[in-house]
Amino acid sequence: MLAEIKGINEECGVFGIWGHDKAAELTYYGLHSMQHRGQEGAGIVVSKEKELTGYKQLGLVNDVFKQVKFDDLSGKIALGHVRYATQGGKGLENVQPLLFQSLTSGMALAHNGNLMNATALREELEKEGSIFQTTSDTEVLAHLMKRSGEINETTISEALNRVKGAYAYLILEDDTLYAALDPTGIRPLSIGRIGEAYVVASETCAFDQIGATFEREILPGELIKINQDGLTSFRFAPRGKRQMCAMEYVYLSRPDSDLNYVNVHASRKRMGKELAKEAPVDADLVIGVPDSSISAAIGYAEESKLPYEMGIIKNRYVGRTFIQPSQELRELGVKMKLSPVRGIVEGKRVIMIDDSIVRGTTSRRIVKMLKEAGASEVHVRIASPPITDPCYYGIDMSTKEELIGANNSIEEIGEIIGADSIAYLSEQGLENAIVKDKTINQGVCMACMTGLYPVAPADEKEMDISNC
Amino acid sequence: MLAEIKGINEECGVFGIWGHDKAAELTYYGLHSMQHRGQEGAGIVVSKEKELTGYKQLGLVNDVFKQVKFDDLSGKIALGHVRYATQGGKGLENVQPLLFQSLTSGMALAHNGNLMNATALREELEKEGSIFQTTSDTEVLAHLMKRSGEINETTISEALNRVKGAYAYLILEDDTLYAALDPTGIRPLSIGRIGEAYVVASETCAFDQIGATFEREILPGELIKINQDGLTSFRFAPRGKRQMCAMEYVYLSRPDSDLNYVNVHASRKRMGKELAKEAPVDADLVIGVPDSSISAAIGYAEESKLPYEMGIIKNRYVGRTFIQPSQELRELGVKMKLSPVRGIVEGKRVIMIDDSIVRGTTSRRIVKMLKEAGASEVHVRIASPPITDPCYYGIDMSTKEELIGANNSIEEIGEIIGADSIAYLSEQGLENAIVKDKTINQGVCMACMTGLYPVAPADEKEMDISNC
Amino acid sequence: MLAEIKGINEECGVFGIWGHDKAAELTYYGLHSMQHRGQEGAGIVVSKEKELTGYKQLGLVNDVFKQVKFDDLSGKIALGHVRYATQGGKGLENVQPLLFQSLTSGMALAHNGNLMNATALREELEKEGSIFQTTSDTEVLAHLMKRSGEINETTISEALNRVKGAYAYLILEDDTLYAALDPTGIRPLSIGRIGEAYVVASETCAFDQIGATFEREILPGELIKINQDGLTSFRFAPRGKRQMCAMEYVYLSRPDSDLNYVNVHASRKRMGKELAKEAPVDADLVIGVPDSSISAAIGYAEESKLPYEMGIIKNRYVGRTFIQPSQELRELGVKMKLSPVRGIVEGKRVIMIDDSIVRGTTSRRIVKMLKEAGASEVHVRIASPPITDPCYYGIDMSTKEELIGANNSIEEIGEIIGADSIAYLSEQGLENAIVKDKTINQGVCMACMTGLYPVAPADEKEMDISNC
Amino acid sequence: MLAEIKGINEECGVFGIWGHDKAAELTYYGLHSMQHRGQEGAGIVVSKEKELTGYKQLGLVNDVFKQVKFDDLSGKIALGHVRYATQGGKGLENVQPLLFQSLTSGMALAHNGNLMNATALREELEKEGSIFQTTSDTEVLAHLMKRSGEINETTISEALNRVKGAYAYLILEDDTLYAALDPTGIRPLSIGRIGEAYVVASETCAFDQIGATFEREILPGELIKINQDGLTSFRFAPRGKRQMCAMEYVYLSRPDSDLNYVNVHASRKRMGKELAKEAPVDADLVIGVPDSSISAAIGYAEESKLPYEMGIIKNRYVGRTFIQPSQELRELGVKMKLSPVRGIVEGKRVIMIDDSIVRGTTSRRIVKMLKEAGASEVHVRIASPPITDPCYYGIDMSTKEELIGANNSIEEIGEIIGADSIAYLSEQGLENAIVKDKTINQGVCMACMTGLYPVAPADEKEMDISNC
Repeated sequence: MLAEIKGINEECGVFGIWGHDKAAELTYYGLHSMQHRGQEGAGIVVSKEKELTGYKQLGLVNDVFKQVKFDDLSGKIALGHVRYATQGGKGLENVQPLLFQSLTSGMALAHNGNLMNATALREELEKEGSIFQTTSDTEVLAHLMKRSGEINETTISEALNRVKGAYAYLILEDDTLYAALDPTGIRPLSIGRIGEAYVVASETCAFDQIGATFEREILPGELIKINQDGLTSFRFAPRGKRQMCAMEYVYLSRPDSDLNYVNVHASRKRMGKELAKEAPVDADLVIGVPDSSISAAIGYAEESKLPYEMGIIKNRYVGRTFIQPSQELRELGVKMKLSPVRGIVEGKRVIMIDDSIVRGTTSRRIVKMLKEAGASEVHVRIASPPITDPCYYGIDMSTKEELIGANNSIEEIGEIIGADSIAYLSEQGLENAIVKDKTINQGVCMACMTGLYPVAPADEKEMDISNC
Repeated sequence: MLAEIKGINEECGVFGIWGHDKAAELTYYGLHSMQHRGQEGAGIVVSKEKELTGYKQLGLVNDVFKQVKFDDLSGKIALGHVRYATQGGKGLENVQPLLFQSLTSGMALAHNGNLMNATALREELEKEGSIFQTTSDTEVLAHLMKRSGEINETTISEALNRVKGAYAYLILEDDTLYAALDPTGIRPLSIGRIGEAYVVASETCAFDQIGATFEREILPGELIKINQDGLTSFRFAPRGKRQMCAMEYVYLSRPDSDLNYVNVHASRKRMGKELAKEAPVDADLVIGVPDSSISAAIGYAEESKLPYEMGIIKNRYVGRTFIQPSQELRELGVKMKLSPVRGIVEGKRVIMIDDSIVRGTTSRRIVKMLKEAGASEVHVRIASPPITDPCYYGIDMSTKEELIGANNSIEEIGEIIGADSIAYLSEQGLENAIVKDKTINQGVCMACMTGLYPVAPADEKEMDISNC
Repeated sequence: MLAEIKGINEECGVFGIWGHDKAAELTYYGLHSMQHRGQEGAGIVVSKEKELTGYKQLGLVNDVFKQVKFDDLSGKIALGHVRYATQGGKGLENVQPLLFQSLTSGMALAHNGNLMNATALREELEKEGSIFQTTSDTEVLAHLMKRSGEINETTISEALNRVKGAYAYLILEDDTLYAALDPTGIRPLSIGRIGEAYVVASETCAFDQIGATFEREILPGELIKINQDGLTSFRFAPRGKRQMCAMEYVYLSRPDSDLNYVNVHASRKRMGKELAKEAPVDADLVIGVPDSSISAAIGYAEESKLPYEMGIIKNRYVGRTFIQPSQELRELGVKMKLSPVRGIVEGKRVIMIDDSIVRGTTSRRIVKMLKEAGASEVHVRIASPPITDPCYYGIDMSTKEELIGANNSIEEIGEIIGADSIAYLSEQGLENAIVKDKTINQGVCMACMTGLYPVAPADEKEMDISNC
Repeated sequence: MLAEIKGINEECGVFGIWGHDKAAELTYYGLHSMQHRGQEGAGIVVSKEKELTGYKQLGLVNDVFKQVKFDDLSGKIALGHVRYATQGGKGLENVQPLLFQSLTSGMALAHNGNLMNATALREELEKEGSIFQTTSDTEVLAHLMKRSGEINETTISEALNRVKGAYAYLILEDDTLYAALDPTGIRPLSIGRIGEAYVVASETCAFDQIGATFEREILPGELIKINQDGLTSFRFAPRGKRQMCAMEYVYLSRPDSDLNYVNVHASRKRMGKELAKEAPVDADLVIGVPDSSISAAIGYAEESKLPYEMGIIKNRYVGRTFIQPSQELRELGVKMKLSPVRGIVEGKRVIMIDDSIVRGTTSRRIVKMLKEAGASEVHVRIASPPITDPCYYGIDMSTKEELIGANNSIEEIGEIIGADSIAYLSEQGLENAIVKDKTINQGVCMACMTGLYPVAPADEKEMDISNC
């Protein structure tokens, strides 16, 4: 569905490569494939003969790099980042990778996640005379590491042990690339190979994009170091049960990515199948809200033996320069991204599959659109449980007041959005669809649907939503 | 699939509106929904108090109009056009609507189709002292009409009777909008209403986009006149069997459009079903090549009771500013628009549905990509018959030398693209999927697959492929 | 001074080159040097193997061609144009050169001037079925020529004999370049050589820009033809006294150009000297309003033995993207293009030289600015007679109602602009400054200052101000 | 003359305003008037309710701010900077003002000058754990201040006492604006008033631009503090003889600025007069190389009673998008920014005044150009002494190896550039032209012409040329 409408947003994607002649270009393509994880800004830092230089800018990857000559970004090691910016930190200075220059070396950081105790740490650092140029959490880790002395696995581990939350961190120092995942493994982070080179990325779709092969997941609490001696693994925290973010599967990640060894499209299709079992309905056809709900809709159709149809079309040419229709035109009936397919839904009882409902406004608009296009009944089926609670781990969500699931019963939601019937997938159904093998210490974080937080906030301050 | 790769291109979309306060804006949204019909240029002409002004530019609709203030295009009547430019006429002057200013009135033309005798007519006109500013067929009609005197239904009919080929023409003169369809009805053209206003468009998706309701098809050989006296219909040629272009259904039109009362997605799904009946195969799953083959793939899966899966992903963020990977990077494995979903196809026997094969290069690349991603078998099924002949009616196709279907047997094609098996839909199967009611004088033009031309070229010159 | 403020605007510059490998590039530089003659649009047409292609766009020469690859404009013959657009014809279609394509040849036109009988001719042509794509005078000549048959010296001469007004025309047909000047020679047009190639341009500064050498003026009523047989001269009209536009010397042309063998800077300096003789004043220093009045100010200072000082500075970085200060800020004292030099004028009796006064608003603002910067007296001296009448020969001027000189005595003007004293150069003084040798059939057109028109309008319609 | 050709570049301009509703907009216009001091980047930081926000970008002031809405930069206090970037630090991060955010307050810095001991200080700070995001000197002062505790006059004074070199510093903290000038007063910095508001700027032309009135110079070693209590002055270093940079007068500053109470144009005219006395020559006319040598040329002409003529024209439309002529075209004679005026110099003995010669390449090109345009003799007169030594105070100059004056006698220089005769102004002549009253502790820094450094470098490291 539409990120900007929906109100759930991934807060970044990271990409690193070590040992490839085309490091910056491959990073460009890698970031490009993760564009859905952050559309507000992008950057690449390269290391050449231990000297770090970079380019970053607000905007989409294409726009940011359209006038950059990759020859000016030569070097065999590169770090990249795409960023979703929360309201509070839209400036270019917050676009990553953050780059720090010292007289003897350079250091760059790229981060996906949220540090819950960032404010407390920052207060402490500022008291000691540290100067911050950004309002981003990411910078806190840089100061923590630098205060400990030279950057190496020990100082990085010390610094990581002081931060709390969910994070996937890439750190480039001179000619060494580090990658670290939080102890609960909430955010995704994988290692791949392309020829002799190493690649690290938030999603495996970046590997497919550049022709790299998936090697393995980075483990919770693991710190990876890649330099001329190859890849070395350190554990900076005891390893618990992995609890990967369920929303990555439900909505955020690309269907061709494998997260923690589970393909996203396949998991969504299973969500659809589970949903069909849990909440069947007598109807003529099944449709999905493009793009993220298509897989679940196909699963629902397959399980229910109903035809899957293309009942809603998404306009592929709506981009940044699209002139949004005015309120007046929208009321006249001018559509934005989604159009109903009258020839399909007219006179039909429609099951409309969506991956989730956040505020309900978009759902209500789509149901209305389908009815105006002639659907005789619209049965809404949601391929995940209601969202009821905030995320402290790096997903930008609507506030609790805005969350329709936090403030209404399921029946009420159905009435608000004008559905003829409504049902959500159960928590158990979602977990079944995602976790293949529950015996091997695997789980999912469904905190935003259950209120059960794998890393609990200690106080009000730690509940502040910040950005990657 | 990818227009720029495939080698089949729609050669334009037209849009007209009469009697709406927001005429130019609605034209913008209408053109936007028909962006797939022409991506090289776009323009809008408005009529205000009988004065015609316009704006046109090379580029996508969004880019063309991003800095235009619609207040500068006020007027209740508007004409719009999106254009695909063949190599020979890429200049801005060829972007439509063509606008002609005389001291007493203005005239604008928008055209989708191809006039087979344009060169002959032009020779004649130039001999009489006519000056042409474009290399486009469209301008010929303007001179023909003007030579006949004032623009009205009589002079337009006379002019139309002199041209030969396939066309959908919109003509705006002072405050009157005319619309005409060729006598065989090869190109699509429909009428809709929005409030009191009239709308005319190449595809009905434009009506859904702006909240208009479909009224009826314009009939073959019909000339429509819309002015303050309402809509009047004239017949400028005897009406024969309608033979709408089959490629509009197979590949070119948007799935949510209804062409000649037949929904495109639904027809494609039927193509898939016919194909499953004609050419079944023992396999694990069915995938479609995005975007145009998805409907057929769903139909095939439904008919064959095999799961439909998302085995190929199309990157949504590839736009004009995307930096195309160099040959070197492509050989290293960097993907462009399409990526395989390893988690889905690995170890599986895959049925890959495509709508058509033109040169075969893309198909070969996709088959290779799927195999590299681990597919154990790739069975190619094409939801239309082989393309063997050129189109003289306004579709830009590869030359006969390039057409893989014109120069190879089906078995050879299978070998060339590396498929484990291959089959095409039969001509009868395609017709069945498209034509709902054969008793009411309806047919389809499948000339590019059969060599049977509904409007036969008289000589070599009329076989020249020109542009709308 | 500031064209956009002043209200006098040159209406175009033309440039042609025949027989140079770098024809398009040299045309770019030639147009660039004549940017002051037209800032609304620019274009280049090249002829290669008799095929004409071109590129034109709204905007400054730099902006128009910044993304053009000159390799795409190869060919040894080129035609270029810079355009000032009057309110009525701002569209891209009116940007020149106009390019016409026929099946057998191409033709392009570039024009500087104004055809007084354009409307009458157009009416006649339209009645005969001609279609116009522009609202520009220039197109009329194209139709006149084409109606006479093939383009050659005879048909061009016939066509030129039907038009009336002031013009410098460049015509490119296949591989022949024609240049024609109106019978009174009101507009400038010169021939130069660069190596073996021929160059034709509105101003000789274009020759210096590209390293060409001046050859001679094109004579009134002369038609030049350049092709592989070299340069041939024809006379299409009897030759009278040349009456070059005085405003070209006073304000419009570049100081380094020689018009009709007279250097512009030198003539301006002579205007200043004549003015000093005619209207001396007891003061401390002389300043000029940048840029066009500097030469006259230097001449005045030299003649009067007073120091010439830089009392007003023009900001060199004010360009198209400059954010104009709001009315509120201007009232607070924020300057736009011109700033006073307090350190120079404070406490001084200043003679302020300007080349002309059109509406008086700018002059009033400058006088006020100088007084606020501390000037004790400001004596305004204008280096040309008052402008009292409209121009029918291609200069865009304010309307008679707006012309301060048409509606006020010189004393009243001085009061309006707040000068301590004011004087204008006499008509005789201006003629003396421009015409070096009055015995050889030379004169100047000062119609806008005298109301004496060398080519008299026959009726009201011929007094309509149109554009080049 | 042409900064980019000449090889002398001012390294920044600063602007601050306290207490005006239109603070950001006025800063924009102030920076605009100082565009010549830095064309690589620009930025503005505003303080609103003690919160600091800013916008900066690479490019010219116009381009940087063309899409900025000043409503987004509201606040009554603003700081601005234009920057010239040396090769080593071209990144956006180095564009100023530098903005630092802490949890309790914000701080911004803008700097013009060069800190000679920056590297040594930075080494020390990095050892203590400070992280730098830029390679700019300016950031050193920020860390020095912050390490001392809260920002106030005491900590700023302490920090300033640790740095060595030439500097004009503006510091904005919360709602207090500080301004400091180095103890020798090498760089310019003035205070003005606009209504109740205070303004501080590198050049007084910024005051004239916005309608502010000059109040006074900031004194060497003075620290100014402006907040709601008004303006308070502190002395952070003992005050010596002021030695303002001579190159500011000779070439860098705008002619309408007053530096240390001396108008730049007037001083240049005096340089020309002194030069005419010291080095007269029998010739026909005097010309200046635009723009910076015009004043001196006028002075020379006045003193020598020779006519001043416009013998060289600078093309006003050459901007960033100008397509530089290729070497091939330049050899064919295509000019870049400067063109000779053949009609003026042909057959004449010309005295060509230039303000300075750096490498000699431009001078040689201009002399050649004048001779090709027909000048019979070209006598070069330079309105300052030869440049022989590097600048450590913030002027970017060619290296000693490149300086023609450091490696050749005056006679040799004349031969190299092809002049018929050559002379430079004496050191005494230059000082006479600049310093009005030598009795009141005033002098000029002519170190680059004399090798006598008012602030002597202690070691090799302090001779490193860095940027503002």
